[in-house]
Amino acid sequence: MLRIAIDAMGGDNAPHEIVKGALAGARRHGVQLVLVGPLERVEAELAKNSTDGVEFTMMHSEDYIAMRERPIPAVKVKPRASIVVACQLVKDGVADAVVTMGHTGAAVVASLWTWGRIEGIKRAAVGMPFFTIQPETFLLDAGANIDCKAEYLLQFGLMGSLYAEKVMGIPNPTVGLLSNGEEENKGNRTVMEAFPLLKNSGLNFVGNVEGRHIAYGTVNVVVSDGFVGNVLVKLTEGLVRQFATVVTEQLETSLPPEIMNSVVQPVLRGFAHDNHYSRWGGMPLLGVNGICVIGHGRSRADAVVSAIGQAKSAVEIDLISAIAEGWKELTARKSLLNAL
Amino acid sequence: MLRIAIDAMGGDNAPHEIVKGALAGARRHGVQLVLVGPLERVEAELAKNSTDGVEFTMMHSEDYIAMRERPIPAVKVKPRASIVVACQLVKDGVADAVVTMGHTGAAVVASLWTWGRIEGIKRAAVGMPFFTIQPETFLLDAGANIDCKAEYLLQFGLMGSLYAEKVMGIPNPTVGLLSNGEEENKGNRTVMEAFPLLKNSGLNFVGNVEGRHIAYGTVNVVVSDGFVGNVLVKLTEGLVRQFATVVTEQLETSLPPEIMNSVVQPVLRGFAHDNHYSRWGGMPLLGVNGICVIGHGRSRADAVVSAIGQAKSAVEIDLISAIAEGWKELTARKSLLNAL
Repeated sequence: MLRIAIDAMGGDNAPHEIVKGALAGARRHGVQLVLVGPLERVEAELAKNSTDGVEFTMMHSEDYIAMRERPIPAVKVKPRASIVVACQLVKDGVADAVVTMGHTGAAVVASLWTWGRIEGIKRAAVGMPFFTIQPETFLLDAGANIDCKAEYLLQFGLMGSLYAEKVMGIPNPTVGLLSNGEEENKGNRTVMEAFPLLKNSGLNFVGNVEGRHIAYGTVNVVVSDGFVGNVLVKLTEGLVRQFATVVTEQLETSLPPEIMNSVVQPVLRGFAHDNHYSRWGGMPLLGVNGICVIGHGRSRADAVVSAIGQAKSAVEIDLISAIAEGWKELTARKSLLNAL
Repeated sequence: MLRIAIDAMGGDNAPHEIVKGALAGARRHGVQLVLVGPLERVEAELAKNSTDGVEFTMMHSEDYIAMRERPIPAVKVKPRASIVVACQLVKDGVADAVVTMGHTGAAVVASLWTWGRIEGIKRAAVGMPFFTIQPETFLLDAGANIDCKAEYLLQFGLMGSLYAEKVMGIPNPTVGLLSNGEEENKGNRTVMEAFPLLKNSGLNFVGNVEGRHIAYGTVNVVVSDGFVGNVLVKLTEGLVRQFATVVTEQLETSLPPEIMNSVVQPVLRGFAHDNHYSRWGGMPLLGVNGICVIGHGRSRADAVVSAIGQAKSAVEIDLISAIAEGWKELTARKSLLNAL
């Protein structure tokens, strides 16, 4: 049985919702848990929940990294922080993957420093299943790499394609390069340099895609630098909430309360929920030598359940070897070598 | 009475919707028109509409630039294209502003080449009133400048602030720099360089803003390079349509057709419409030595009416002098000079 290390102290609702979600996730997905955090706090949460049928151990860590801390100094001065200890458990072979709802930057730094990168991979990227507006659209990088080189974007395309195919179950996923127009000559400097690399990569590259293609789900993997990716993900999160608010206010003026309460509110709340981070659980960190799924800081138990499922799939299909092999195959292509 | 040069051949629905909208706009806003296009085609459209109470002249131009053409070569080889002739009319003092629903890139190139830039301004930017999701949020650059320097972003902040205040009527508009986090140390290289410039500019600068702040309307002027701006505008356009489609489908399964038709559809269609280019008419081109408002290629008559109103306001408040003066004032600030 796979064993998932849970950062019990990660996120705004830790440790309560994290422990609750971890237990439910273990039951749902048939995995064992290692709950990482201050022993007495984790035990207090366990006492509030039923642990029947769940195989778990605890790993004491007295420290944790708060949302407002700067990731590099925080990981440096806190070797006993829960996210760092969780990554160490994977390195030591005690656990197979890490799930955290904590500080994204700290999880990236802890994973990178503890595990290193997959051979040949230049940068680790955060992948973002693009909400259930389009359940088969996956964006990366969602924020780990702000200034990118063309080769990083090529590697994001490869890693995204493998994740979409093997974890999300999309056969032969299409890969698009996010740009300011569909034509080959559109893009900023880095995008224009990345285009011929992706074109000669052997991936199912469909060329440049625009912002609207994300909304319409016309492409499976959307490649962008982490600056643009982060702005997009946060804009979408904001628009979903704003849309539900405005439409509710307008319908309220014409529809009787009973219809609002019984029909309209559930649909709009469901819409906001479906398009919410909790549905997808988390963002995989791709390119590091270990599996780490990072959820939103505001996550509740249901998001932890989903994230455990994602982590389990990534371990089962051996995503890390797939990325290492995939990169070797890509760079063996003569056409790509000429373009690089 | 102000006189607006109308590119009668610009856009997917030209000349029919353009001429119809121009006549309505002239009546609504009390302006004269110069209709620029092939004489016989413009006359044929005029014959289909009432011209009562509208003062107009026609300016023959036998050529026009199609949406698929590349802007620089197109403007170069077509000096008699309607958009080029319209810009020339403003240069010659025959008209006060240009309104076009045609090729954005061609309008930018024709304006720049015919009018030049305002003294001191390094790049012209396309401004985008951010739909009526947030009627007091204005983004620039929406796509004219793909790779930007920090100083361009500073100038976008100034021009956006003046447009928001003087044309949109927002007193002391707040200016935010779009980034991947609110902290001062977040951003790509250009954004981090632009931060101290905006901070020392004397503008009402509120610091870095994230994608969600656009949706929540927490800032009036959002400064970004044209690559990010273009991706965002197209994502928003796509998401608004996608939201309306998904929510309609879900409500249809529970609500009777008469409620759908009489209440829900109008709200959702209205939402898509309110957040639609037609409501705002067009995007002002800021930084050139003339007023040009560029509408969406799919615009219909109502968008032309709105664009004429925007162009009229910009002329009346003498936006060009305001930008020239504003830049002089900004660069007289010692703190900014030290940061530049």
